[in-house]
Parts: sequence; structure tokens; C-alpha cells
Amino acid sequence: MWKFVADKAKHLINKIPTASSPIFTLRLSPLSSSPKSQSAIRFLTSLHSPSSDSMASSDASLLVTLQSINPRVLKCEYAVRGEIVTLAQQLQHELQTSPGAHPFDEILYCNIGNPQSLGQQPITFFREVLALCDHPAILDKSETQGLFSADSIERAWQILEQIPGRATGAYSHSQGIKGLRDTIAAGIEERDGFPADPNDIFLTDGASPAVHMMMQLLIKSEEDGILCPIPQYPLYSASIALHGGTLVPYYLDEATGWGLEISEVKKQLEAAKSKGITVRALVVINPGNPTGQVLAEDNQRDIAKFCKEEGLVLLADEVYQENIYVPDKKFHSFKKISRSMGYGEKDISLVSFQSVSKGYYGECGKRGGYMEVTGFSPEIREQIYKVASVNLCSNISGQILASLVMNPPKVGDESYESYYAEKDGILSSLARRAKTLEDVFNSLEGITCNKAEGAMYLFPRLHLPKKAIEAAEAAKKAPDAFYCQRLLNATGIVVVPGSGFQQVPGTWHFRCTILPQEDKIPAIVTRLTDFHKGFIDEFRD
Amino acid sequence: MWKFVADKAKHLINKIPTASSPIFTLRLSPLSSSPKSQSAIRFLTSLHSPSSDSMASSDASLLVTLQSINPRVLKCEYAVRGEIVTLAQQLQHELQTSPGAHPFDEILYCNIGNPQSLGQQPITFFREVLALCDHPAILDKSETQGLFSADSIERAWQILEQIPGRATGAYSHSQGIKGLRDTIAAGIEERDGFPADPNDIFLTDGASPAVHMMMQLLIKSEEDGILCPIPQYPLYSASIALHGGTLVPYYLDEATGWGLEISEVKKQLEAAKSKGITVRALVVINPGNPTGQVLAEDNQRDIAKFCKEEGLVLLADEVYQENIYVPDKKFHSFKKISRSMGYGEKDISLVSFQSVSKGYYGECGKRGGYMEVTGFSPEIREQIYKVASVNLCSNISGQILASLVMNPPKVGDESYESYYAEKDGILSSLARRAKTLEDVFNSLEGITCNKAEGAMYLFPRLHLPKKAIEAAEAAKKAPDAFYCQRLLNATGIVVVPGSGFQQVPGTWHFRCTILPQEDKIPAIVTRLTDFHKGFIDEFRD
Repeated sequence: MWKFVADKAKHLINKIPTASSPIFTLRLSPLSSSPKSQSAIRFLTSLHSPSSDSMASSDASLLVTLQSINPRVLKCEYAVRGEIVTLAQQLQHELQTSPGAHPFDEILYCNIGNPQSLGQQPITFFREVLALCDHPAILDKSETQGLFSADSIERAWQILEQIPGRATGAYSHSQGIKGLRDTIAAGIEERDGFPADPNDIFLTDGASPAVHMMMQLLIKSEEDGILCPIPQYPLYSASIALHGGTLVPYYLDEATGWGLEISEVKKQLEAAKSKGITVRALVVINPGNPTGQVLAEDNQRDIAKFCKEEGLVLLADEVYQENIYVPDKKFHSFKKISRSMGYGEKDISLVSFQSVSKGYYGECGKRGGYMEVTGFSPEIREQIYKVASVNLCSNISGQILASLVMNPPKVGDESYESYYAEKDGILSSLARRAKTLEDVFNSLEGITCNKAEGAMYLFPRLHLPKKAIEAAEAAKKAPDAFYCQRLLNATGIVVVPGSGFQQVPGTWHFRCTILPQEDKIPAIVTRLTDFHKGFIDEFRD
Repeated sequence: MWKFVADKAKHLINKIPTASSPIFTLRLSPLSSSPKSQSAIRFLTSLHSPSSDSMASSDASLLVTLQSINPRVLKCEYAVRGEIVTLAQQLQHELQTSPGAHPFDEILYCNIGNPQSLGQQPITFFREVLALCDHPAILDKSETQGLFSADSIERAWQILEQIPGRATGAYSHSQGIKGLRDTIAAGIEERDGFPADPNDIFLTDGASPAVHMMMQLLIKSEEDGILCPIPQYPLYSASIALHGGTLVPYYLDEATGWGLEISEVKKQLEAAKSKGITVRALVVINPGNPTGQVLAEDNQRDIAKFCKEEGLVLLADEVYQENIYVPDKKFHSFKKISRSMGYGEKDISLVSFQSVSKGYYGECGKRGGYMEVTGFSPEIREQIYKVASVNLCSNISGQILASLVMNPPKVGDESYESYYAEKDGILSSLARRAKTLEDVFNSLEGITCNKAEGAMYLFPRLHLPKKAIEAAEAAKKAPDAFYCQRLLNATGIVVVPGSGFQQVPGTWHFRCTILPQEDKIPAIVTRLTDFHKGFIDEFRD
């Protein structure tokens, strides 16, 4: 069966118009040293039913086939919720229906930056305000004083006053409620020390739709390239694939703690140009995902200068701006860096993405976020506005939360102390967890791991024995996917194979979040260590 | 200035690769009788700054130009928030800064189905549950009993139990929380009398992203056509344009109350085929937007049969399913119609869209909705799942609200009476408002208006004097846009020109919501009547 399906998938890939073009080759180059096309391998998981073209054509459910749909959808991949998670869900189901069926009693989802799914508690003040804005009828009831802090009540009133008709159930302005954008702009100003304009803010349902919006704007065809770090968060490769563009990879240097070298970016830009690709934008993820590094200020200046000189839009993924765990690093937004270099609106086109899903708040399910769009002409801004308008607006709770995140309680507010304690508790615990896991990985034979300076991930490198790589090949798996599947089956720990993020050909990694609660960490350490030692022993050359 | 800009826009349109192809002609055909291209006219609003190519290239903010961006974005239009709304916002600002500057003291937004922005109150039970799920910490506090109904507390507990770890701030399953999908499927079963599968439900941030998802899946290129009613809700034309497909229009028959004739659909399907277009899907909006008609059951059967026979995916926009105002019409979902004809999974590919934004709930700002996807093969379902996964999940409050809408309080629940009173109050008031406005329009010289059997809109036809059409031409406006702008400037009432929804060439309409609160209706009636009489007198032939 597998071979049949593999051939079918290859056939499909070959039918995609761009498949044989140099552009396509470039796009797949980070994977090209794999003995089997990893792209093909990953496709296959979706082909578990009989071939559609062998069915009678009277079957309407088979009129829409893999051959007839948008090939850009087929090409898109998103490993964070890919094959490994499907397997995890299956194991979880088995644990429920037949307890004891596996050598572990729970699945530990370290595949995704989803803190509250692993027990992180929301910030009380934020939730109080959200609840009050959801049901303003209770705002002036006496019982409410006993249930909610005084400043959450006050903040809810302030927010309601910013919403026309206090209607939290109405579509807002397509960019989001103006008063909330004012608050966010003020928060950015306070963070950066440079002015921010509420008219530059587009509130979105998390950062992902904002990234899609920019890709949709910038990509005309496969001849438009977007420079992305490798390893990258697969939203970028997925979005570029969905919009029919070309991912132009630049490699982060693992040896220097996932350093971003301008010379490497320049080399890749030139290589893309020589293949007829017009590079439109440069994506930087800072702090890094999946790599966890925090860029140095000098490095950021070089990047801004490079984008200015090369006329590239700088797409700055800054969703982990509050997640920094080392005392010698600090977050600087690219807006701040650019302005501090004297670059104004006319010098650099810059989009900064922020989300309520990350930081110490971790409110993934609320789908809130914004992008700050600077350095675009008014006519392009109107195009962005138009596309935002087609979807009417982002959800109002997410909008409110984005304003709270950028304007949390201040010293003297009733909630300040508890807010600060909650925030500090979460961030210092994340720092401890990052260090513990980093140390464990580095203590194991055949694993090396850079420091998680920020974000929510470690991206350890697997130095696999030859026999393990051969076993993976025999199992028709990429070696890292093979390792991760074995890890899951043995321990219930879900991590994502590095191939889902792309990596230097011939190297193998996985991404592991630092999010399990601290009381779970010792068990994870033990399970990981035992599994890994066994794995290495099994395949020792 | 205008001529310069118009030439520039034409130049831009001509540069779009498909501009001169027969496909493009077909797409624009509903507008083609207009003396000037309305597409070109609408483009122009975004070209208010100097031409970008006349600027020095050192200006980075002009590196991204209308020429360099995705032409599909340029082509996309969304009149509901277009030029007329920009003008309305400007007038509103002027009213605030210089009261008395205009012959009215407020702007009445009848352009958009946004009930709560015009004073409609949310359903109390829904908001109670949302607030409790946002801040579950108060669920077992004694004060909460005094503030919230017993069944809202119970429902919140039920919902929290359905969420792994009770984490309302976590990303959910990509299709939405399983327990909520169970509730929704049960609600569909109760509505239709036929089984519904929670695995067929994809929860989304309102219906719009769901429509985009299907268009993204089905459209490969401009050779893929989507049959859409004309007039249509411009989400469809916008989404088809953004995804690079071809809108294949079929005309609703105004003379028979916006009847949907299968012979017309068939004719248009054949015409599209003869131009080399493969039609993938048929969009039906029932109850109609902007037209307000409710399809008869027989007619729905014909449509389902047609889609089955022609192998078309049936995209059923059923977001107004609760908005029916006439006793002789009833909502039947296309799923129910298909199943009652004996059509199963293998007979018809059907997607039904539902939203929390419409109905009696009108929770536009919550961005909740779902699509029920039936009759697709497992491999296509996995592609839809994958695309949903790239955006992780829809917002949890919207998910919860979608489950509440499909499972509201029942007889015997503490909230039932107040819930029913609120619901009935809203729906019966909407019915009265629809009738009042319909009667007013029909009482005016030069306006005819079909009944609003459902939805939230009237779509009156303007029979304009020749002189008015000439005046519009002289002002470089489509005649209906000219009328709507004059109406806004004279009365503060915002309605959307019919050309934004497309219409039979040479006919002119506008869409007016029935949403202003009843105490505003008399003033609207007076203002509308006075304006219209003056307009007709001014341009009488």
C-alpha cells in the first residue's frame, strides 16, 4: 500500500505546474539531500483511502479530487499539527479506551506553543476585564465589587466607552476599535521610546492571519520570493505555498547559537535573483521560533540596513517579545532599531507582528494580535485596509486582550501586585524549565542543544548513528521523524521533527516546547533520558 | 486629476494578465453596460496620492507599489465597506468637530448587517455563559449566584468540562472543541431531522473565513469558475478575485421576487463551459443577501438535483436561517433538502455556512461560525483540515457562542422565558421594520421593492430619470452610487449602491438594512422620503 500511495503522491507533485522549474528546486533545496523527498513523504499521510480516480465517476463525493483542487493547498505543509499529532491523538484515544495499553499514562504535548493547554493559568486581571466586557450588564451590580478587582471594573468601563454604543457584539472598524488601537500605540511608544500611530495598527485574529495578509499582498507568483530563516516557523512556508510564492531560505548558524549572518542572507538573495526571483521581503523571527535565540542589537541594525538598501519589506515576527530568559539579552523591536538609526517612514517598509498567544499571557484560544504597518504608501495601505474589510474585523475579545497586553496594570493599581506576581511566576518558571531541558539535552550522547534565550522552544540537534538513519530509511521516514515517532510511542511525549521547520540538509533536529508545568518536568526528563539512551544503544554503530 | 487617475487605473487593469481574456469579460459582464467601467471607478478611491512611479526610487515606502503587489488584491472589491463608508466616516468626524455642519445630527449606518452597532441588545443568556467561561474563577463564588442565571452557570460548567483542562485560553483542535462540535451537530440534527456528524463541523471566525477556505481549496486558476447569484453578497466576488478564479454569474429574477431559475443557472453554466471554464461550485444564499428572498422547498430540490447532476459543490450560505419574517416561508437547510431526496454523502458535495453574526443573536463582533462539510472524500477532508491547522483554531468565545446558538435554552430552563422574550422581541421587531421600509420604498415614485422575506436587507430598485443618469455620468459615478452619495450627504443615511453587489446591466439598486431600532424608523422614513422626492424633482425628465 505504501508504495502505491508514494507513487501516487509523486505523480501529483509532478503534475503541479511549477514542479520542474528551477524555482521549485530552490524551494525544496533545504530538503533535497534527503534520500526520499520529505515533501512526498509528508503528503502521504493524507492518502489513506483508495485512489479517487479508481472510483466510479457517479460518486459525487469524489468529484473534488487531489488532482482537481488548488495545488498550492496540496503543497502547503504545517508540521506543528501534522502526522505526529495525529498519532498522538490516536494514542490518547487508546489510553482512554484501554488504560494500560501504552507504557505511559498521558500524552505530553510539547509540539506546540500552547501554554494554557498544559496548565498555565491566565492572568486574572485580563480575564476579569474580558468577562466584564462580555457581560457589561453586571458592571454596576453590587455583587460585582465582591467578585472583580476595582481596576478591572474601571478598565472595562474605559474600554466600553471606547466602543461606539458600548457594543462589544458589533463589527468594529476593519482595523479594530480606534480607542484600543490608541492604547496599543501608546504601549508601543512606551516600549520603544519612539512614536507609534494608531492608524498603523491592524488588529487581527492572532498573528497568523496578519502574516497571511502580508503574503497575499506581496506575492504575485512563484517569481516573488520571501527570505525566511531556516529553521523557520512553518506558518511562513505554509503561507508562502498557499499564496504561490517562493520561499528563499537563509540559514541560521547553529554553531554560533543560531546566529543570523547578513553575508548568508545576501548570498541567498543573490542566488534567488540569479534564478529570476524578485525577493519582496525578509522574515525575521525574534526571539526565534523554533530556535529560541534573541538577536543582538548590532545584528538587528545590520538587518534593518540590509532591508533598506535592498528595498526589502522587513516582516518582523515579534510575538515572543516578552519571552526572554537570559539576563544579558533584551528585546528590541525592529521599529525601535530602525527609528534609532534615523530611518523613518520613507526609509524602510516594516511590519511588526504581535500576538496575545505568547508572552506570559499565553492566551492562544482568544485569537488576538495586531500588526504595525509602517513605511508603505497610502495607496498600499488602502489595499491592506480593503483586504481587512473583506473579513469585516477581528474578534472583539481578542482586540480587547491585545490592548490589555500592551497596557497591563501599573504600579499603584489594585491588581498590580497580583498581576506582577502571576507574570513573574510564569516567566521565571519558564526560564527554569528552559534551562533544565537544555541541560538534559546537552547531557545526552548524540544530542547538542543551543540555549533557549527566549521564545518557548528548544531545537536540539540529533547526531544519529548510521544504523538509525538506515532504519529510518527502511521505515520510509526522515530520520528525525523516525526518532520523534519512536519517542512518542515509548513515552507519550510529542515533539515536532526538525524537517517540519526545515534545516541544513543532512542535519536532524526536533522542536520541544518548554511549556509542561514544572511538576511534570522531572518525569519528562526521566522518560526522555531513558528513551534516548535506549535508542542510541539500539542503533549504536 | 480624476482623468489622470482613471487612466492610471485602466493601465493597471490592463496590466493584469487576464484583463483581455474572455474570462475577464465574462466576469465583468454584469457591469459592462455601464458607460465607464465601474471596476475602474471603484479602484480610483485608493489612488489619492501622487503616482508612485513618479517618485524617486530612494523612497522605500514606495518600493511596494500598486504595480508590484498581487493583482488579485487589486481586483478584489468590497463595497459594504467601500467608498460610501469612507465618506460616512468623514461626515461623522465633521459632525463631531463642527456640530451643525450638516443637515442631520447623526450617521445612520444601513450599509452593513451589524445589528448591535445600531442598538440591538445581545441575548442575556449567551453573554452570561461567555462571561463565565472567560473567568471561570468566579463560577463557585456565592456572589455569582446573584449575578448570573442558574442555567448559565450550569451551561458554563458543561462547556468547561468539554474543554481539555478547562483551558478556554488554549488553542483547540483545528476544527474546534470536540464537545462543542457535538452540541452543534445535535442542534443541526434537531433542526433538520437528519443525522449530523461532529467531524463534519469546522468552527471558524465567522462565516467569511470559511468561505475563503473553500474558495482557496476549489480554485486553481481563472479557469475555475464559481456560480454566484447576482445580486450577490460581495464576500463571494472578493474571495473569488483574491483566489484568482472566475465568478460565473447567474441572475436572480427580480420580477418573481428574486426567483432562482434553474434554466438561468444552466444557461450560465453552459456559457461558462463554452469559454473553457470548469465550474466547480454553485453558491446559494438563502435567505438571500442582498435580496431578502427565502427559497421555496421545490426550488431547493431543483438546485440540489442540479448540483448532483452537474457535479458541482453546493456552497450554501445559510447564515440568515433564523431571519424569516413571513408566515408562508420556512427555512430548510440544503442538507435537509438533500437528505430528504435520498441524497447521501456520495451523491452531493455540500458545504453549509452558519454564523453567530446574524439571526436574532447578531453577535458580529464575536466572530463565530462554522461550516458543515459533507460529501467530500477523506483525502480532501484532510486538506481542509490542514489549511484549518495553519491558522491553529478559531477563537474559543466564538466557538462557545456557535454552540449556544445551536443549543439555546429550552422550555423549563431558568433563562427560557427571558431568552424567548428577547429573541421574539428582536425577530418580530425586525419583521415590522422590514415591512415598514418595504412599504415606504414602494410608495415612492421611481422605486420598486421586493418583499424582505428574510435576512436583514431590502434591495430596492431605482428607476432613475435620464437626467439623473446623465448627472451621474458627468460626476463619473455609477448612477446608483451617485444616488447613494447624494442620499448620504443629504440625510446621513448610509446605504450601499447595487453596483457593489452586481445587478442586471442597466438596472440600479441599493441595499438598505432593516436594522435601525424602531424608534429611529419614523425619522428615517421622513428623511428618505423627502430626499427621494427632491432628487426625483431635481432630475425629472
